[in-house]
Amino acid sequence: MRHERISILGLGAMGRALAGALLEAGREVTVWNRTPAKADDLVARGAREASSVEEAIEAGDLTVACLLDDASVREALAPATHNLDGRTLVNLTSGSVRQARELAGWLEKDGARFLAGGIMAVPPTIGTEGAFILYSGARDLFDRVAPVLGPLGRPLWAGEDPGFAALYDMAALSGMYGMSAGADHAVALVHAEGGDVETFKREVLQPWMEQMLAITVPGADVSESVPDEYNPAMQATGLETLLSASQEAGVPADQAGHLRASLWRMRRAIAAG
Amino acid sequence: MRHERISILGLGAMGRALAGALLEAGREVTVWNRTPAKADDLVARGAREASSVEEAIEAGDLTVACLLDDASVREALAPATHNLDGRTLVNLTSGSVRQARELAGWLEKDGARFLAGGIMAVPPTIGTEGAFILYSGARDLFDRVAPVLGPLGRPLWAGEDPGFAALYDMAALSGMYGMSAGADHAVALVHAEGGDVETFKREVLQPWMEQMLAITVPGADVSESVPDEYNPAMQATGLETLLSASQEAGVPADQAGHLRASLWRMRRAIAAG
Ligand SMILES: NC(=O)c1ccc[n+]([C@@H]2O[C@H](COP(=O)([O-])OP(=O)(O)OC[C@H]3O[C@@H](n4cnc5c(N)ncnc54)[C@H](OP(=O)(O)O)[C@@H]3O)[C@@H](O)[C@H]2O)c1
Ligand SMILES: NC(=O)c1ccc[n+]([C@@H]2O[C@H](COP(=O)([O-])OP(=O)(O)OC[C@H]3O[C@@H](n4cnc5c(N)ncnc54)[C@H](OP(=O)(O)O)[C@@H]3O)[C@@H](O)[C@H]2O)c1
Repeated sequence: MRHERISILGLGAMGRALAGALLEAGREVTVWNRTPAKADDLVARGAREASSVEEAIEAGDLTVACLLDDASVREALAPATHNLDGRTLVNLTSGSVRQARELAGWLEKDGARFLAGGIMAVPPTIGTEGAFILYSGARDLFDRVAPVLGPLGRPLWAGEDPGFAALYDMAALSGMYGMSAGADHAVALVHAEGGDVETFKREVLQPWMEQMLAITVPGADVSESVPDEYNPAMQATGLETLLSASQEAGVPADQAGHLRASLWRMRRAIAAG
Repeated sequence: MRHERISILGLGAMGRALAGALLEAGREVTVWNRTPAKADDLVARGAREASSVEEAIEAGDLTVACLLDDASVREALAPATHNLDGRTLVNLTSGSVRQARELAGWLEKDGARFLAGGIMAVPPTIGTEGAFILYSGARDLFDRVAPVLGPLGRPLWAGEDPGFAALYDMAALSGMYGMSAGADHAVALVHAEGGDVETFKREVLQPWMEQMLAITVPGADVSESVPDEYNPAMQATGLETLLSASQEAGVPADQAGHLRASLWRMRRAIAAG
């Protein structure tokens, strides 16, 4: 396979990590950033620097945008819209489902082929085991782009709907925030009652959450009911006890929001019978 | 080492699993349950059945209680209190920190040696890899009991304070509830926006949460500040966007309680500078 030339728009922490991983993999890379000084290190490693977005888009068979937010992508691309016909654009800037759908409509109207993406990694883990990148849009385009951008992280197609990469990205973040709200509250409770936080984290919380993660995600469900063996009444009582224990220990009520979310689900399951 | 004789009080789902694992390991087991019929299967597997709590306590070098709650433990032990001097009791019934401390005071006053415990497993995982049991109380007593009850799950000493097994147990449950509130909300969001829930769970949420768990627990902290690289202002904005997206998708606000807990923490970090 001929290696496609790749242009990167945006050299923030993430854009620099993307460009670096592609250079590392021997790809031909052109970079552009609003503030030019950020390209120096990448140029020293073999990247070409473009002096405008238009020039960057022309230099690449494929252009990847990784800017701050949706507004900055629109602003950066605006001067180049007359020149998008037949071009391939991949947007790895985080945004909402609706923003991704609107951007797709806008770019495709100008004749571009477009994939919306979501990066499931942080800059230091780009290109490492475990990192993966969500893409949504036409399947044939994904099949062409996936091997080209493979060095960034495992490519995963989220579907035709250009909003789905953002949807899955956002939903996965929500899952992660639940995990860390739970871990933070656990640690706050142990600390408030005079327990040994470091031992608790290492010997109890980590192995317990690892063990539970294996059944939590498969068990997550959108239906009103929960499996019989969950015994929602017993779990609701346990959650109420846990909430009072947290309050008695002096942990702020706001920090136990995840417990109220779980209690809400148990009560809904009880009501559904 | 001589195998100590073990008595089990309580043959609910958990008590039966405990007795079964000890019989499996070749231990000499006596069982007692308020409703006698539940012992039949265990008797067929080699257990002795005691007709009273007193008789059970006399038959064992070590008595393990696994009843519904603290009140049922007090009720079950009440007729035997004149006979506890020099006896060893381990309570694996779930309860609060305060209940464990009070029970320890009560039993030790009657001359018993006591460990309070917390079971970090469900009945089907008792005795399997990953299951562990928290114990708190005197270290020398833990050292004696740990090998005897080893077949139930890896024994872990939580400290001298008899309340610490309950504390770590409860805190770990809180962590788990956060994880599942997050996973449930993620799935609700994907479902509400018409995404493919099964693909999302298997290919996105599971690997993402596994990857994130490795940094979440070590990063959980009780201080007001969060590490610089967390960029709390950017994360707070992301959380606000996620909360609105969830609302726009029609997911009930209660179900996003874990996001408000995370937002609260970010705002506190911003305020602390
Ligand atoms: N960092 C992470 O952990 C992470 C993880 C997953 C996804 N992401 C996503 O990746 C994207 C980039 O993140 P980052 O960490 O690289 O952010 P960052 O370090 O703040 O960089 C922001 C980039 O956007 C550019 N920019 C901002 N406004 C612009 C405008 N109006 N026109 C043109 N360029 C503009 C900046 O250019 P200047 O240099 O000229 O200011 C800079 O290159 C974000 O959408 C983020 O949500 C980040
Ligand atoms: N199941 C789990 O997944 C799990 C996990 C971790 C910890 N635990 C803890 O383990 C303990 C037992 O749970 P389980 O699942 O075995 O519950 P269960 O199936 O409901 O069994 C309850 C047991 O308590 C007995 N009991 C209730 N009230 C009593 C009283 N006043 N006097 C004497 N005995 C009484 C019952 O006897 P009868 O048969 O006569 O009613 C039965 O043996 C609980 O504290 C639970 O929180 C359970």
